[in-house]
Amino acid sequence: MFAIIMAGGAGTRLWPLSRRGTPKQLLALTGDTSLLQQTVARLGPLLKPHDIYVITSQAHVRVTQAQLPQLPAENILGEPLARSTAVAAGLATVLARRDRDEIAIVLPADHFVADEAALAEGLREAARAAERGYLVTLGIVPTNPATGYGYIKAAAPLHPASRTALVERFVEKPDAQRAAAFLKEGDHYWNSGIFVWRTYAFRQAVERFQPKLSSALARIEELHRTPGWMTEVRDILEPVPAITIDVGIAEPAAAEGRMAVVPLEAGWSDIGSWSALLEALSAASGADLVASGRHLDRDSHRVLVHGGERLVVTVGLEDVIIVDTPDALLVCHRDRAEEIKPVLDEIARTAGDRYL
Amino acid sequence: MFAIIMAGGAGTRLWPLSRRGTPKQLLALTGDTSLLQQTVARLGPLLKPHDIYVITSQAHVRVTQAQLPQLPAENILGEPLARSTAVAAGLATVLARRDRDEIAIVLPADHFVADEAALAEGLREAARAAERGYLVTLGIVPTNPATGYGYIKAAAPLHPASRTALVERFVEKPDAQRAAAFLKEGDHYWNSGIFVWRTYAFRQAVERFQPKLSSALARIEELHRTPGWMTEVRDILEPVPAITIDVGIAEPAAAEGRMAVVPLEAGWSDIGSWSALLEALSAASGADLVASGRHLDRDSHRVLVHGGERLVVTVGLEDVIIVDTPDALLVCHRDRAEEIKPVLDEIARTAGDRYL
Repeated sequence: MFAIIMAGGAGTRLWPLSRRGTPKQLLALTGDTSLLQQTVARLGPLLKPHDIYVITSQAHVRVTQAQLPQLPAENILGEPLARSTAVAAGLATVLARRDRDEIAIVLPADHFVADEAALAEGLREAARAAERGYLVTLGIVPTNPATGYGYIKAAAPLHPASRTALVERFVEKPDAQRAAAFLKEGDHYWNSGIFVWRTYAFRQAVERFQPKLSSALARIEELHRTPGWMTEVRDILEPVPAITIDVGIAEPAAAEGRMAVVPLEAGWSDIGSWSALLEALSAASGADLVASGRHLDRDSHRVLVHGGERLVVTVGLEDVIIVDTPDALLVCHRDRAEEIKPVLDEIARTAGDRYL
Repeated sequence: MFAIIMAGGAGTRLWPLSRRGTPKQLLALTGDTSLLQQTVARLGPLLKPHDIYVITSQAHVRVTQAQLPQLPAENILGEPLARSTAVAAGLATVLARRDRDEIAIVLPADHFVADEAALAEGLREAARAAERGYLVTLGIVPTNPATGYGYIKAAAPLHPASRTALVERFVEKPDAQRAAAFLKEGDHYWNSGIFVWRTYAFRQAVERFQPKLSSALARIEELHRTPGWMTEVRDILEPVPAITIDVGIAEPAAAEGRMAVVPLEAGWSDIGSWSALLEALSAASGADLVASGRHLDRDSHRVLVHGGERLVVTVGLEDVIIVDTPDALLVCHRDRAEEIKPVLDEIARTAGDRYL
């Protein structure tokens, strides 16, 4: 068994902490270590360090190696260009040169999990289903009618004693009404982006559903480490469509009854925004004020303070996110963290790249 | 005619911008110049620079001189100890060594006035009443039932054609219900702390209502500029009760029918807190978002951003005050700016003087 950690994200939604040079997975958002370091640590009960791979953009290979000294340096794989998750998973599978019959865990580098034991148990259960040839995903048992996640609709359990079920279909991010209906109906899970499969089953699925990617991977496999090969890898991947695992592999596999889902209750969050971080850390700690750095508060609620060296004092705030960095400060309503993006576009127009 | 600007305030309520070394009047809160510099500028239509005096703590004499290069250096008077406004006004009157029959304008250094022409006209009208022997104050026509100000109840006008009226009495800061009643009733003004009088009338009132202060001032007058006199001034003032002009002079004078009030409508604010600053600047500009420094906003309302060098981005905020300084950041609900004080006490306990 081995793991591929997908560390290709840009994470502009966590500005001003995340910048081009320091994407989300490299940030310490939920403790003293980065999300990537925590993701690696979470795999500790299941895998040895040399069985853990990280695929990231070539620009971030060095800083990623520096954050993960316990991993062999060659396990940090650099993508010559970003082509979404299906391509990254395929490339990593090839570059890792693992036996075709091994179990691969493919997971994002930048998520949060409060209950790490539950995650490990979920991955073990997923591995058992993967042994039987299924492409398996972890489905997060929803705690609220979230509209920010895609959903997975489960069909019948694989066998009566198991919670693992066949996937009936993947559902795009719903509106509030549909999300509420999913919760009421049951058998709907949030799409975690965590997959477990035999590499053989994965390569078969790629061949069936993404033939262009499949032949690109075959050519890369032949080239492996010949002189100047990375330039060629780039040229080979250039014409391959950028497609996600969800859309390009998992959905068509589900349609053919080859996709299974393991329900997971582990305090998971994708930390897709500052609001999501506040929600995840509040749920984990039971406190509605979440603060890091030097901070003093008087009677604030549903507030996130991500501070650094400076003293931050908050008084009587409700539903506010504060992110303090050396050159930029964000103060944002909790429900409007998604609106950072247009502001960043304006910053780019007016101040150039300096703050990006 | 001459003016005494009272610049003895500490202004902890405007932390983290105001600190021990830089009290409120020295800060640029309402534009590019400090409140003190604006106060001096406002007197421009009425007085020459050598007729403007500032009394401040000895610790702030140099920085005050530096802010006011247009004033003779000796017009910046240092108090050897802080003994509230009646003592400061008395000491400044003696130290300025002006003719006893001149008109003195006594006014705080750290207030805001949007309509400077209206203020000048109010001061001129006050000077006319002062000529006739009254102690005169400017009473701010209230724009809302504020509970943060003392009130002045006016009696009959001095003569039919004038808005200037006798003061019936001074009223301590009321509760919300009484404040609303005052507004409904009319003839109630906010106590501005701005006074105009003949120095002779003032010294007479001090003699009558504050005999200890009166004899202290007489002794200081005799000593004036003899060798080592400042040490003696300190010793002379030490046992004098710390009392405000309002309580120690104006109230008893009003009881004897010697106090007059000139109504003023000039967009005045004492800027007693960040909330008051937001209110004053919003009223002056007509905008409900008031920002300084590098700042970008998306849809925030009733928000004050006092920024510096760093970029501050606000998104979807309501009723929030943000004050960004190099070593400390305050983010505070607009209605709770008064609660900075207990937080400062906690900072003093936990972090010492560093942030004070």
